[in-house]
Amino acid sequence: MPSISKKGLQMPPSPIRKLVPYAEAAKKRGTHVIHLNIGQPDIKTPDIALDAVRNHNIEVLAYSMTEGSETYRQKIANYYAKNDISVNSSDIIVTTGGSEALSFVMGSIMDGDDEIIIPEPFYANYNGFATAAGVKVVPIVSSIEDNFALPPIAEFEKLITPNTKAILICNPGNPTGYLYSKEEIQQLANLVKKHDLFLIADEVYREFTYDGREHYSVLQETGLENHAIMVDSVSKRYSMCGARIGCLVSKNKEVIQTALKFAQARLSPPTFAQIASEAALETPDSYFNEVISEYVERRDILVSELQKIEGVKVAVPQGAFYCVVELPVANSDDFAQWLLEHFEVNGKTVMVAPAAGFYATPGLGTNQIRIAYVLNKEELVQAVQILGEALKTYHNS
Amino acid sequence: MPSISKKGLQMPPSPIRKLVPYAEAAKKRGTHVIHLNIGQPDIKTPDIALDAVRNHNIEVLAYSMTEGSETYRQKIANYYAKNDISVNSSDIIVTTGGSEALSFVMGSIMDGDDEIIIPEPFYANYNGFATAAGVKVVPIVSSIEDNFALPPIAEFEKLITPNTKAILICNPGNPTGYLYSKEEIQQLANLVKKHDLFLIADEVYREFTYDGREHYSVLQETGLENHAIMVDSVSKRYSMCGARIGCLVSKNKEVIQTALKFAQARLSPPTFAQIASEAALETPDSYFNEVISEYVERRDILVSELQKIEGVKVAVPQGAFYCVVELPVANSDDFAQWLLEHFEVNGKTVMVAPAAGFYATPGLGTNQIRIAYVLNKEELVQAVQILGEALKTYHNS
Ligand SMILES: Cc1ncc(COP(=O)(O)O)c(C=O)c1O
Ligand SMILES: Cc1ncc(COP(=O)(O)O)c(C=O)c1O
Repeated sequence: MPSISKKGLQMPPSPIRKLVPYAEAAKKRGTHVIHLNIGQPDIKTPDIALDAVRNHNIEVLAYSMTEGSETYRQKIANYYAKNDISVNSSDIIVTTGGSEALSFVMGSIMDGDDEIIIPEPFYANYNGFATAAGVKVVPIVSSIEDNFALPPIAEFEKLITPNTKAILICNPGNPTGYLYSKEEIQQLANLVKKHDLFLIADEVYREFTYDGREHYSVLQETGLENHAIMVDSVSKRYSMCGARIGCLVSKNKEVIQTALKFAQARLSPPTFAQIASEAALETPDSYFNEVISEYVERRDILVSELQKIEGVKVAVPQGAFYCVVELPVANSDDFAQWLLEHFEVNGKTVMVAPAAGFYATPGLGTNQIRIAYVLNKEELVQAVQILGEALKTYHNS
Repeated sequence: MPSISKKGLQMPPSPIRKLVPYAEAAKKRGTHVIHLNIGQPDIKTPDIALDAVRNHNIEVLAYSMTEGSETYRQKIANYYAKNDISVNSSDIIVTTGGSEALSFVMGSIMDGDDEIIIPEPFYANYNGFATAAGVKVVPIVSSIEDNFALPPIAEFEKLITPNTKAILICNPGNPTGYLYSKEEIQQLANLVKKHDLFLIADEVYREFTYDGREHYSVLQETGLENHAIMVDSVSKRYSMCGARIGCLVSKNKEVIQTALKFAQARLSPPTFAQIASEAALETPDSYFNEVISEYVERRDILVSELQKIEGVKVAVPQGAFYCVVELPVANSDDFAQWLLEHFEVNGKTVMVAPAAGFYATPGLGTNQIRIAYVLNKEELVQAVQILGEALKTYHNS
């Protein structure tokens, strides 16, 4: 039997994959599992987007342009202009989710053995895209003690080698919820200019910032035009994860031209989803105001409920809808499995994402979990109460 | 300025990319350009698929399952059963077009420097996927003289090295239109078993076979279960290229499990497109009968018109909707550009795909073009007449 690839063996499985069979078994037993582990928002998709697809008048569902339709890219550029980011439609490639944009970026700027520095904990699939591209992830640890702020620039400099090609940040962060300040972005900007690196910013949660904080994009930083690459997505912004539309934005023409060659090979992004995404740009501000205040309320209640539990440490999120929590357990993998296998309160238990999967350095995050607050407040409170009860029992078991 | 990747530099541009500016200039001059160069069918998408999307009742457009929805995969398995292919839903991963299936396959079974043998001329984007995966394409030449039939197995054996991991065929072929016989597939099956290789079959045109010929799939061959990997797509079958839905099918569990890890990194295939694709499976047989007889008529008229032109050689297609044509010109790249720049009949000219882009061996196919017969018959006849006139003028110019 022919063997699969080394790369295929190295591809990391999803951090919660191991838990899925236990969750399924729990459901089969009749236990209600509250999912704190998935970043799939429960928020309604804007009607304007759903209706645009309902009202389509397509007769031949044809390939769209490889880089996305001209009108859609123009409207995306207008959206960025409203957000103080000045780009042209030709600086934008529409992709099949932010996921594909990340693949195209890695392929376009890095070869095998090139290195990319990423503050950890980070979005676990960065590992997958890096492995697929044959690229080496060099993690730099950020700490729950200071809310996962940017590690000192001196620490970055220690990690830079002749093979370093880029720094990748997620802003605001999944799983950290941390929003980098303008000053932190500027420190990174100086660093990448000094060492001639790319600065890739995954800004798929750019609209989700709280407490009056403003998002500062790598594309707002003057002088960074040739270094900055931004990845964006409609998935979370409009709660339309299933559309599979994102984009890659850069003022660096070489990057765009190269990414376009990767895009040409796969022909085009999905047409129905582009119709929905183009319409979604007309979503009224009131929609976002409601969504943001809903997330803030959820965050507040989540954090205050968590802080009531003894021995729990929470990094207070300033953006996105994730929260890393340190638990008084030795191994959150075991704890998460135990929750599904052996614990319930009134027929309910919770599924959490063990945080080790968000770290590249072995041994880090083993006492942490990630919670996604994409549930209504009642369920969220219930889930945290179950977690609190569980910790008491777990310690005695 | 940081540099892009070597891989990015090597990524081949689309074979017709160079011609696009000339086509645009021609259109600006007011010349009507008849496109013989694109594989985008003009056939109407089945209403049943378009209506399913019109009637969607989605409220939250969520990620679907990574491997595609269970109901859709079950229905795909039923479709294959009707085509004498026995697979389970667990042997199928739904992908974003056949394109993504090809990427997943290459990543799952090959590492850098591994080799994949492909009969040329072949679908140009195989080059792109191979470059992106860091894999080496080893072409084996098939000839217009015998309609692009399978090259002798002895020729394949000469090319097999310790680095060879797979043979990739396209059946029926783009650009050749050739349909491999059961005997040819069995010869390949014996070869890959003997040398412990994978046999990848791109069967996205499986429904388009003519003159009573039957398609024989690599998945029909017993004993080949661990070697056979099939790539499929709804793009051409239901004229829904813009959906971006395909699939990867294999009885080899390791291949499926590995491809699933690549799939997990990109989360899920597009949801609206899956709705359309699932509904498309209910398309009545009458739709296909009409489509097939339309393509046969087009092929017949195309071939007979081409054969009227002196010095032209045509490989008569038995499937798909492409045709490779040898012209009495030294360089079809130049000729194609000249057509757009300097030639017209009553305000019309044609755009063809120079065939060199479908060969990996430099210097091959330079006097050939590919024609896609996805136009109505009148336009097709007109286009060939223009081509005939053009050849006369070109020779005298
Ligand atoms: C940080 C981050 N980046 C990128 C993505 C990819 O999202 P999509 O491909 O749906 O745009 C996600 C999805 O959860 C994410 O959390
Ligand atoms: C031979 C072949 N394989 C694969 C594809 C990819 O098609 P899609 O990604 O639309 O399924 C095409 C498209 O033209 C093709 O001709």
